[in-house]
Amino acid sequence: MKIAVLPGDGIGTEIVSEAVKVLNTLDLKFEMETALVGGAAYDAYGHPLPEATLKLAMDSDAVLFGAVGDWKYDTLDRPLRPEQAILGLRKNMGLFANFRPAICYEQLVGASSLKPELISGLDILIIRELTGDIYFGQPRGRRIATDGHFPGAEEAFDTMRYSKPEIERIAHVAFQAARKRKAAGTEGRVTSVDKANVLETFQFWKDVVTEVGKEYPDIALDHMYVDNAAMQLVKEPKRFDVVVTGNMFGDILSDEASMLTGSIGMLPSASLNTKNQGLYEPSHGSAPDIAGKGIANPLATILSAAMMLRFSLNQPEAAQRIEAAVQKVLALGLRTGDIWSEGTTKVGTREMGDAVVKALG
Amino acid sequence: MKIAVLPGDGIGTEIVSEAVKVLNTLDLKFEMETALVGGAAYDAYGHPLPEATLKLAMDSDAVLFGAVGDWKYDTLDRPLRPEQAILGLRKNMGLFANFRPAICYEQLVGASSLKPELISGLDILIIRELTGDIYFGQPRGRRIATDGHFPGAEEAFDTMRYSKPEIERIAHVAFQAARKRKAAGTEGRVTSVDKANVLETFQFWKDVVTEVGKEYPDIALDHMYVDNAAMQLVKEPKRFDVVVTGNMFGDILSDEASMLTGSIGMLPSASLNTKNQGLYEPSHGSAPDIAGKGIANPLATILSAAMMLRFSLNQPEAAQRIEAAVQKVLALGLRTGDIWSEGTTKVGTREMGDAVVKALG
Ligand SMILES: [Mg+2]
Ligand SMILES: [Mg+2]
Repeated sequence: MKIAVLPGDGIGTEIVSEAVKVLNTLDLKFEMETALVGGAAYDAYGHPLPEATLKLAMDSDAVLFGAVGDWKYDTLDRPLRPEQAILGLRKNMGLFANFRPAICYEQLVGASSLKPELISGLDILIIRELTGDIYFGQPRGRRIATDGHFPGAEEAFDTMRYSKPEIERIAHVAFQAARKRKAAGTEGRVTSVDKANVLETFQFWKDVVTEVGKEYPDIALDHMYVDNAAMQLVKEPKRFDVVVTGNMFGDILSDEASMLTGSIGMLPSASLNTKNQGLYEPSHGSAPDIAGKGIANPLATILSAAMMLRFSLNQPEAAQRIEAAVQKVLALGLRTGDIWSEGTTKVGTREMGDAVVKALG
Repeated sequence: MKIAVLPGDGIGTEIVSEAVKVLNTLDLKFEMETALVGGAAYDAYGHPLPEATLKLAMDSDAVLFGAVGDWKYDTLDRPLRPEQAILGLRKNMGLFANFRPAICYEQLVGASSLKPELISGLDILIIRELTGDIYFGQPRGRRIATDGHFPGAEEAFDTMRYSKPEIERIAHVAFQAARKRKAAGTEGRVTSVDKANVLETFQFWKDVVTEVGKEYPDIALDHMYVDNAAMQLVKEPKRFDVVVTGNMFGDILSDEASMLTGSIGMLPSASLNTKNQGLYEPSHGSAPDIAGKGIANPLATILSAAMMLRFSLNQPEAAQRIEAAVQKVLALGLRTGDIWSEGTTKVGTREMGDAVVKALG
């Protein structure tokens, strides 16, 4: 089991250290190799995703990723910015399936914007297609309009597109995830989010997902327009089990869903390819404002490591041990600053990692 | 002042009657003419937007619209469905600027999914471009992919596009609205929502809005990515004043924002063209399940009539009188079923309309 460890920028180094510490506590043999990525790699090698880092990632079973980005790189040309590293990894590794769980931990219910009864017990999984849609569709650019409301005027344009195999493979991922969740006690339902009433691309999406769904008679399937989904996430988030959607709608809805929990410092993510090679990273960013202070929350990264064990390394028991350990430290009242509230014990990044190690037992 | 009254389907007739009653109580002279639209028009004339209805709307200063749609029309060919009436009116009247206020009435704070302190006093205005973007962009359709991830596979596609004059005119609408709101006590800020980091169309959008913003030095301008906007609406909705965005992002965010208040039965909307001709309708739908029962909430439609007085008929004082009257009936504890809570008085559609008339004094 080979893991590429890419801490990145900002709080990346601190939080990834804690996840590595937790992994090393397990009775498993990992080959781990660390490399620079993002702004740190730009500073050292002049590129956010150096050839050697990319090769390491491609040759590993999984990538444990921290975070990239810092304001000081904002003036660089776009291809040199830290964020390009993650795009380059997605593209080269073919990571088309993005898993974004939105889970509300019982002890953190109070952190949510939503009323406790609406959010308590929330456990939904948003699956976002990650390599297609309008974010990558060609052609795109600027030109002079030849039709539309203002022929002759300058305009900009992009192309939304999805091919049948792209939709099929992400649909299979969603149905299989729903089946696994059902075995663990959820309802076993996939909600496919589209805008079929207006967009050709998403009428096609809906048709193809419906076809694939016939292969999973044990899993319920429903369809929802994206504007309604944005509403239902606020109104009744627990009505969802697995949500599957395109790259752009998934970007919007997974961020909305993560904010519902109020504790984005707790949320892991995974991006997988067809060989179950994956990149695992916290849902939050590099937080340069608190970097190096030892106060960042390492739990999203530790939980990302658990997802890595489950999805890419085929070690579900180890994954569950880590998740149980995280639950335990929360139950003990330990909190980093971002999730701290009256009556709980504030700890730093390292103390939190140590507590998880201890709770692993 | 000529008003086309188009009640439509479902609860449309009941709620529009109450708004008309309120308008007739004012000491103003209106010429009002009623026509069928939506499913009701299809039943009578075989088309959801008959020639005569369209002509009436085009010849009026404003359209007071109820709602269209019923499950029984869902099997019709798309061009004959009730919803096409509203698309036809938007297109023929050139209604490019959609105003969607999200206001939380103090007495209804408890109806929100959000904690009271986050939502109390909310008063934001989302301005959505309504005639461009990917919802109308050509070309679109299905074809065999010649490039991308799966050349040779079937694919569907749509075109996102915005021309400079389209962005300029909606930006002016937003800055002018922010200026009016500032005069009435808000911060005077426009938040332009884009996805400039990924989409050519929305980098152009951001550039053009920034240019237009220079003509409004009294109004602050900031830019936010759409995924972040979807988060901030949940986390801190009161940070917004006026939000301006494209057709698709506006569809998603305005619905999300309306659900934040928890009382969509209270939210009006307006769609305007360059001549300030407008279509005014409640943000909610035709609710066929409660149609004819006399229990629908007419306040969103009554408040839409107030917007009509303000934006298309140049009667701001009359608009304010209606809005104050609505506040007053809420303060008296009168509630239709959708906004009822323990300790308040449940009333029907007509009683609510009568109460507003009485409160007009
Ligand atoms: Mg995002
Ligand atoms: Mg909508």
